[in-house]
Amino acid sequence: MEILIGIAKMNKYAMADCGDSVEVAERPRGGISAILADGQGSGKAAKITSGLVVAKAAALIAEGARDGAVARAVHDYLFTIKDGKVSSTLTIISVDLDTETLVFSRNSNCPVIIKGQYGIDIYDDAVNPIGVHRHMKPLMHQIPLEVGTIVVSYSDGIQAAGRKQGQTMEQDSILKYISDNPPEDVDYIATGILEHALELDKYRAGDDMTVVAVGVSDRDPDHKIQRISVSFPY
Amino acid sequence: MEILIGIAKMNKYAMADCGDSVEVAERPRGGISAILADGQGSGKAAKITSGLVVAKAAALIAEGARDGAVARAVHDYLFTIKDGKVSSTLTIISVDLDTETLVFSRNSNCPVIIKGQYGIDIYDDAVNPIGVHRHMKPLMHQIPLEVGTIVVSYSDGIQAAGRKQGQTMEQDSILKYISDNPPEDVDYIATGILEHALELDKYRAGDDMTVVAVGVSDRDPDHKIQRISVSFPY
Repeated sequence: MEILIGIAKMNKYAMADCGDSVEVAERPRGGISAILADGQGSGKAAKITSGLVVAKAAALIAEGARDGAVARAVHDYLFTIKDGKVSSTLTIISVDLDTETLVFSRNSNCPVIIKGQYGIDIYDDAVNPIGVHRHMKPLMHQIPLEVGTIVVSYSDGIQAAGRKQGQTMEQDSILKYISDNPPEDVDYIATGILEHALELDKYRAGDDMTVVAVGVSDRDPDHKIQRISVSFPY
Repeated sequence: MEILIGIAKMNKYAMADCGDSVEVAERPRGGISAILADGQGSGKAAKITSGLVVAKAAALIAEGARDGAVARAVHDYLFTIKDGKVSSTLTIISVDLDTETLVFSRNSNCPVIIKGQYGIDIYDDAVNPIGVHRHMKPLMHQIPLEVGTIVVSYSDGIQAAGRKQGQTMEQDSILKYISDNPPEDVDYIATGILEHALELDKYRAGDDMTVVAVGVSDRDPDHKIQRISVSFPY
């Protein structure tokens, strides 16, 4: 079997820095996690905030901390270093091969969308971002790991796309990318959703935009070669 | 312009865990770093060692630490938590857009190979791994960042491929993949070198194998969408 992750990310129009950060971390007891953070504001300050958030989360995951503890510790860290004055979203999507579950943790105004065997579930209960409230809990979910599953989440710039142009990002158009494609096509799903959002913004992104898509495939590649491919335009 | 990173990685034959770890970290002042570690031994213990090494390095890079300080601090960390008893290689390849240089740091028995404007340079001076000697220095190099450059490094399993089969990995065959391909094809370069090593090992890898290839391209993609694609077979 094969876990596939596709990530597409771009800066707010005319900004040199992206306030969203994303990182992929291997889990020491097996599996892999994708971490997405959207730092408050935009530009360099937001990039530094979200960069610290995802790096701290990745380091804790590499040390074996469970995801709920990771989200809490990263909140406490941000709350401490910024004195409760700077918020960030934090979404962690983990394929945990040790427990054979899919675990996801949300501190974001954007949903986690799951396509499973019986259709699509949208997890979008209201929850606070990290960093600004003394007491913070992530919304955690754990479901059995099943072949064919696709998990998608994204940042605010996707959800709010088109707003400055008097248009609205319909969630149905996001769901269509997920329902129409197999888990092997997570790169296409992530890029497709981002490009659709960009189109709504008339190719001048109103905010930083990031899409993360995770697929669980029954493909069994020869020799089990793990691959990572990064394209970083500047 | 565009920085491209291609990584290919596989486990030693019949091992459930890979003792090599690799991570890609965004630099807070601009640019991106690829971090490769090969933990002593193989299997789960080596995976945990190298996982901690790359995660610590990535977290320090995200906090803005310079690469030479990162290598030293990660050595001190491993030396402390394992009481000087466990070694790891550590190679950091950074495209630093703040200083417009390519920075690389070696604590590895494997070379860093650079294809630049005037040909190929091989950086393979002897240097100790991290974790086992009280005093340790990384071998650091910093060169101007030039379009067209390709940087390749790999782990021991590539260099020693074929040994158990009475064959030898000729460095020339690695260099051929680098000299014959443009920076846009780093995925192909990484996979090609790994598959060649695997062939020498008669498709039973004698050790964990990882190849990291970084390219600097003058391609200017529309809308500057950053992409990450991961394939993680299990």
